[in-house]
Amino acid sequence: MRVGIIGLGGVGRAFVQLLIDKRQDLLKEGIDIQLIYILKSSGGIHDSEGIDLQDLMTFTKSESNLSLYPKGGSENIDFDYLIEKKGVEMIVETTPTNKETGEPALTHVKKCLQQGIHVITANKGPVMLAYKELNTLAVNNKVQLGIGCTTGGALPTINSGMIDMAGANITSIRGILNGTTNFILKEMEEKQISFETALKVAQQLGIAETDPTLDIQGWDTATKLLILTNVLMDEEKTLKDIYVEGVTNITVDEINKAKKEGKKYKLIGKTIKDKNIVKMSVKLEKIDYRDTLYNVDDKNKAVKYTSNTLGDLTVIGGASGVTPAAASILRDLINIKRGYNFSREIHKN
Amino acid sequence: MRVGIIGLGGVGRAFVQLLIDKRQDLLKEGIDIQLIYILKSSGGIHDSEGIDLQDLMTFTKSESNLSLYPKGGSENIDFDYLIEKKGVEMIVETTPTNKETGEPALTHVKKCLQQGIHVITANKGPVMLAYKELNTLAVNNKVQLGIGCTTGGALPTINSGMIDMAGANITSIRGILNGTTNFILKEMEEKQISFETALKVAQQLGIAETDPTLDIQGWDTATKLLILTNVLMDEEKTLKDIYVEGVTNITVDEINKAKKEGKKYKLIGKTIKDKNIVKMSVKLEKIDYRDTLYNVDDKNKAVKYTSNTLGDLTVIGGASGVTPAAASILRDLINIKRGYNFSREIHKN
Repeated sequence: MRVGIIGLGGVGRAFVQLLIDKRQDLLKEGIDIQLIYILKSSGGIHDSEGIDLQDLMTFTKSESNLSLYPKGGSENIDFDYLIEKKGVEMIVETTPTNKETGEPALTHVKKCLQQGIHVITANKGPVMLAYKELNTLAVNNKVQLGIGCTTGGALPTINSGMIDMAGANITSIRGILNGTTNFILKEMEEKQISFETALKVAQQLGIAETDPTLDIQGWDTATKLLILTNVLMDEEKTLKDIYVEGVTNITVDEINKAKKEGKKYKLIGKTIKDKNIVKMSVKLEKIDYRDTLYNVDDKNKAVKYTSNTLGDLTVIGGASGVTPAAASILRDLINIKRGYNFSREIHKN
Repeated sequence: MRVGIIGLGGVGRAFVQLLIDKRQDLLKEGIDIQLIYILKSSGGIHDSEGIDLQDLMTFTKSESNLSLYPKGGSENIDFDYLIEKKGVEMIVETTPTNKETGEPALTHVKKCLQQGIHVITANKGPVMLAYKELNTLAVNNKVQLGIGCTTGGALPTINSGMIDMAGANITSIRGILNGTTNFILKEMEEKQISFETALKVAQQLGIAETDPTLDIQGWDTATKLLILTNVLMDEEKTLKDIYVEGVTNITVDEINKAKKEGKKYKLIGKTIKDKNIVKMSVKLEKIDYRDTLYNVDDKNKAVKYTSNTLGDLTVIGGASGVTPAAASILRDLINIKRGYNFSREIHKN
């Protein structure tokens, strides 16, 4: 399978490393991947015989400008070149997310699907803004759109809702979808420190970003919840349809008080669908020790689906970091190669 | 898709009911199921136009002998008739389990796969005794073998290990795989009653069987662990390779003592694979409150996989009863129709 990668940041590089490390395992299953394009804004590499990945990783350790790569690097190799030159069967999209326009990823995804190229994207932007349109494009062009990485990385939220709930109707989605805030809440409880102090710890450990707004105000959770709702409940909601509250006001006192009641505060993203009325919220909820989400601590994430015929399903996990994120892209790739039809007309589970 | 059912007990009947209830949802996805055979030991029904399911359900409420069914019932319609007459694309096998010989299901599954018929089985016997052989038959005849129902019913243990861990190596499997013993342990703790009394409660509620030996001696857990290990770790183990201890010796005192330490006793089925050495056990383990299996109480089941690149994944759920079991058969059917290649040469995740 001839694959191209757009974007070569942390996740992109981890994906290349996985292609090296997993080559023998993949070949055993008959999956032979040639990486023939790598595109960055500064230039790209095209090698129709397959880029030497080990050599590439060594090169990019000291040089970020791909156009200087001796075997096929050029500043003229960009997305238009790839679309014109063709030859690629699957694109892995890992450019940075833009939640207002979805660009440049939205254009990349659309054009590739239109050209009959499978797409796996780690980018929430296009998925949250235009999933239905992109899915229809995939269906009409008989290719797949893999989005597993966009809603929890290694945590298989999309797979669980789509594959494990196949044939059942999902009536609610409840999730702890943001590892950073979950880590902060645990730090506050364990070390009896304020929100601000716990946030600083998270930043020092590289768990929270320098600008943590999206995480702590609840928007990262809201974005993931939005994607899950639209994909698994066949809706076309937007962020505006979600009531969103962040975690910044929580105090150690409140956490301690909850603990005495056998409860914990968690930032819960929740969608309830009842007789076609859909209610969505992201807010701190005091959950009971009997709740399967109660024990989801630290950087862990989880989602709980409620269904009519298959009961409840809680999925906990989602190792953080670029390797698990890249591994979730590889998982989509393998499952597409195993024939799974992720992109269908009807999407309800 | 023309389907035949072998066995029409609780799960078989619940499956027929689901085909009625879910017909419109399935049609929306382009899945049009005609049930053209139903076989029981006393006789069967064959209607190449598709059996009228609502009519059949009414008929079988008061009559268990299918050969008396006016539209296509006959005592001459048996498995040999089905194989000779053909016309079926998928068989759903729901005959009672025999763990020594696997029969008659083993013959049914083998012959159907050899004839190029997809098989979904709810029957642990053939899967625990001959999975590798059956998988090879499926691969060679380009059909699928669905076994999701055999290792936890609604709990998607096989899907999680195979699909959600695709591309990662599973290094350990730990599961609470038996709802009956888990219910008994919760009853003992909550009501402060002995094992014997809790077992009686479970029997009165229809949760434990009249002969509960397989559950409480750990053999049901061992069987499921064996299937998961062989399928997901590409092993060919047998029950003899598992160290099995039941739950019958546990006392309320021990449970209370554990509780004071923040721990709970759970019947854990466990496989650890380290450098190709596989260790398997089923026994009561005192697990810590931070363990994601800690909160799996009552009739719930769960499995936790550890992997190299995708981290840990815990899946909790598994509603009990014939409808969730039937829904897990329907789930396999849908995922096969969606193209997933469950039966491959190499099976590691």
